[in-house]
Amino acid sequence: MANSLAALDGVFHALADPTRRAVIERLGSGPASVKELCEPFDMALPSFMKHLAVLEACGLVGSRKVGRVRTCRIRRDRLAGAESWIAAQRAAWEARTDRLTEFVEAQPAQEKST
Amino acid sequence: MANSLAALDGVFHALADPTRRAVIERLGSGPASVKELCEPFDMALPSFMKHLAVLEACGLVGSRKVGRVRTCRIRRDRLAGAESWIAAQRAAWEARTDRLTEFVEAQPAQEKST
Repeated sequence: MANSLAALDGVFHALADPTRRAVIERLGSGPASVKELCEPFDMALPSFMKHLAVLEACGLVGSRKVGRVRTCRIRRDRLAGAESWIAAQRAAWEARTDRLTEFVEAQPAQEKST
Repeated sequence: MANSLAALDGVFHALADPTRRAVIERLGSGPASVKELCEPFDMALPSFMKHLAVLEACGLVGSRKVGRVRTCRIRRDRLAGAESWIAAQRAAWEARTDRLTEFVEAQPAQEKST
């Protein structure tokens, strides 16, 4: 439980940056080298590597070096955890809204019967 | 577009903290006063207010003061935006996985025909 809470901290922190979200979006279409990932950004490689390190630290991205090329790929389970958390909140609100709707709809009937 | 990107930055940053996520979870069951929200945490009120300020700044939580009581409520649209972003990433991966599956499944047939 503590681990999954810490994982959510890391994942949401990682997603709170447009460069890191863009990397996740790019990796959605398949693995890519660090060089390919960095290209679209007007950013020095060391700065980009810091963003990549944040994505790797929280487990959203995995990488493997073969020769001189480091290839990154998305790791879906961590993002699924974040999606589940948000979906659980929505489910709670929707259940509450349903109860409120039932309550409001039940009112005229009660008034008529008295 | 720039606004919605900035909104995602703020929402994901706000969610990267267990106290703030717990407040969102609590508000899912209905509006609550600042005092009620603060109670479960072993935290001084000023520290708690800083967390609440982060939630209000990104638009996840709205509040209204009546007399001496400030009541907070969730604002669903912002969390829906974060959920949509994650869901879009999942959709992209799933589409890619489907294409990969089709490709792999198509291989034996092609081999047979050659």
